[in-house]
Amino acid sequence: MKNFNPIRGTYDYLPKEARLREYVRATILNSYQENGYNLIDTPILESLDFLNSSEGGDNLRLMFKTIKRGEKLDLSKENLTESDIAEEGLRYDLTVPLARMYSNNREKLPTPFRTIQIGSAFRAERPQKGRNRQFTQCDIDVFGDSSINAELELIKTCFDTLARLGFENLTLKINDREILNQLVRFSGFSDGEINTVCVTLDKIEKIYMTGVMMELIEKGFDTEKINKLVDIVNDIVENGLQASGKYGVKVENISRLNYLIDTLNRLTGNRYSIKYDISIVRGQGYYTGTVYEIYTDGFSGAIGGGGRYDKMVEKFSGISCPAVGICLGFEPICMLLKDRQSSLDIRKNLVLLYDSDDDIIEVFNLKDELKKEYNVALYSRPKNIKNFYSKIGEVADLLTSVKEQKENKPFKQL
Amino acid sequence: MKNFNPIRGTYDYLPKEARLREYVRATILNSYQENGYNLIDTPILESLDFLNSSEGGDNLRLMFKTIKRGEKLDLSKENLTESDIAEEGLRYDLTVPLARMYSNNREKLPTPFRTIQIGSAFRAERPQKGRNRQFTQCDIDVFGDSSINAELELIKTCFDTLARLGFENLTLKINDREILNQLVRFSGFSDGEINTVCVTLDKIEKIYMTGVMMELIEKGFDTEKINKLVDIVNDIVENGLQASGKYGVKVENISRLNYLIDTLNRLTGNRYSIKYDISIVRGQGYYTGTVYEIYTDGFSGAIGGGGRYDKMVEKFSGISCPAVGICLGFEPICMLLKDRQSSLDIRKNLVLLYDSDDDIIEVFNLKDELKKEYNVALYSRPKNIKNFYSKIGEVADLLTSVKEQKENKPFKQL
Repeated sequence: MKNFNPIRGTYDYLPKEARLREYVRATILNSYQENGYNLIDTPILESLDFLNSSEGGDNLRLMFKTIKRGEKLDLSKENLTESDIAEEGLRYDLTVPLARMYSNNREKLPTPFRTIQIGSAFRAERPQKGRNRQFTQCDIDVFGDSSINAELELIKTCFDTLARLGFENLTLKINDREILNQLVRFSGFSDGEINTVCVTLDKIEKIYMTGVMMELIEKGFDTEKINKLVDIVNDIVENGLQASGKYGVKVENISRLNYLIDTLNRLTGNRYSIKYDISIVRGQGYYTGTVYEIYTDGFSGAIGGGGRYDKMVEKFSGISCPAVGICLGFEPICMLLKDRQSSLDIRKNLVLLYDSDDDIIEVFNLKDELKKEYNVALYSRPKNIKNFYSKIGEVADLLTSVKEQKENKPFKQL
Repeated sequence: MKNFNPIRGTYDYLPKEARLREYVRATILNSYQENGYNLIDTPILESLDFLNSSEGGDNLRLMFKTIKRGEKLDLSKENLTESDIAEEGLRYDLTVPLARMYSNNREKLPTPFRTIQIGSAFRAERPQKGRNRQFTQCDIDVFGDSSINAELELIKTCFDTLARLGFENLTLKINDREILNQLVRFSGFSDGEINTVCVTLDKIEKIYMTGVMMELIEKGFDTEKINKLVDIVNDIVENGLQASGKYGVKVENISRLNYLIDTLNRLTGNRYSIKYDISIVRGQGYYTGTVYEIYTDGFSGAIGGGGRYDKMVEKFSGISCPAVGICLGFEPICMLLKDRQSSLDIRKNLVLLYDSDDDIIEVFNLKDELKKEYNVALYSRPKNIKNFYSKIGEVADLLTSVKEQKENKPFKQL
């Protein structure tokens, strides 16, 4: 017996799950669109030169690469390296291709330019729960808007979207890389050290302050600097964003973030928990300003997150252009909604059984009538009804027959 | 200046075009679902062993292949061949992965099993107009139904879908590989010769009967056989399917096809041109029965097509399972709809301008109100209004401002 499984780290989605995923996709897309973002699309394959020039970090190591074709592929060459045989890469996220696409088309596009991307990205991660090698991202981004209103709308849009999907208890944790940089600098670290210190701070939730201290000692930093940083962080954790003013953080940074938090609270009627959190860093090297993550009950990781990356377009194209984005975690959202799939507002699937003596034109006319309200699948009445019932639940919610419809009988629930 | 174009044969879709493509996708998907087909999804990457075992013909040669990763990639090996360095392939269609997925899950699935697949496939074709290296397919298929009603519903569903997209003049050309085989055999060709003869017959529309004769002569066949075949084909072209009975075609094949054509005409109120066409062959080696193509005004190629492939699942899994499918050509449909995009029933995009003295909460409240009917994008009133107008059409249909809304002024058309 041959193996018909999908390749490692990828999945086949059968009807029930695919239907939920499509519902989530459509709900997110519609909500994004209603809020004034515009769907765009870029190819799954990108040139390797381009991808390698992105600040992809670990993602570059995990990239799927395609083999050169035809005469370009010379396997007889001596001391062959991967770059001799590789042609394209599969995109590892949607942000890097977006920056390329924007750099290529900015003359045609309005400023600010708001985009939606919903598509697949690929990383050859060690397969494990929650680490798919092909996964869906749902991003919105704004190019050409340096004002904090860009963040405001992005986050408000994600709140609206998650509410529409039925999520009630949401927490937004927000930080600003500029504030973080100022605090780390104030503790005595040099500009070149800031990034590695931030990577450690990112782990506060996991390893607590003791773990952070130990990791910074392991990284070889002075205990004096470390102690100063720890005192600052502890003070801010206890006394909030306002306390950071004591440690050299500029007033405009603090008031900007306060404006964002206050306005979000007003716009959402204080429905959600929105708080400054010094441990939110986000790994990617490209973030330059605000960074944020959205959490909900029943899932320990973030179900959304993003931040400002004002230098990416400039790095690619030489043209300065502020940029900021947020993405919703499609895979965790689908996982969380799985349990209450039947309560979601998805068009119901109806099976219409017909018998061999039913007139086929009549059968189709009845189907057309029922289609106004349901998705209608015709089935010739099965001989083995038990076997039929055991499998039909994968594709259908309700059952009726031509005969029962003529007698005005109600649908059977499956 | 660096090059920011997408790679050869692939495209970036800017908002206006992406919006049309999403409208086409959603319309096709909804129509397929209402007709009782079920969305499923399979990965873009498949194992090369599996793909190479499919009857992919030329498509195997055009396949994108990924490079082995980590220790698996040994470039120091002598006499290196492509199979030493290749790991996965990008799917070249959606039918082959579907057969794999069905073989793997048939125990869980009802019979018949109706599927929808809308996704990307990849072929490294020589870039030319209409030949994208990444392209979208929109397939519906039925597994486990050998009755002609499977074809009936597939074709009726595509007619419904195309009607919803605004296509009025449709022509369905239909043939049956079994009938074709019987006719070719009757002309004196051996079973082993049938396929190559059919490949030539496929070209009647392009090279006419004279061309067909010449190509068959070039292929080295007896003129006697060729003349007999040509006489038969001419008779059938002139006198229709019924004439084929004279040449050894079984009555059940003829009446099956007649039933399909008659019932389709009755179901569609004779709205479309539905006709037997002996030149419809379709290239793929896997077709075993009915084959059909849909044509419309303004485009010379087919905008849909498919057929029966009763042996594919058996070839993969050893288990006999009839299968039949049809796909709509996403790329030509989008191309044909481009000219009348503004008349399509797509939710309108509205720009809402605000001024720096507008209260941000009021602005958002107005946006929420307008969102009930429109997609609403907030723009701070631009300084350079001329530049703004020149680019806003890419993303918006209508324009208003907070001020104008307070004065109940109508929207501006863009």
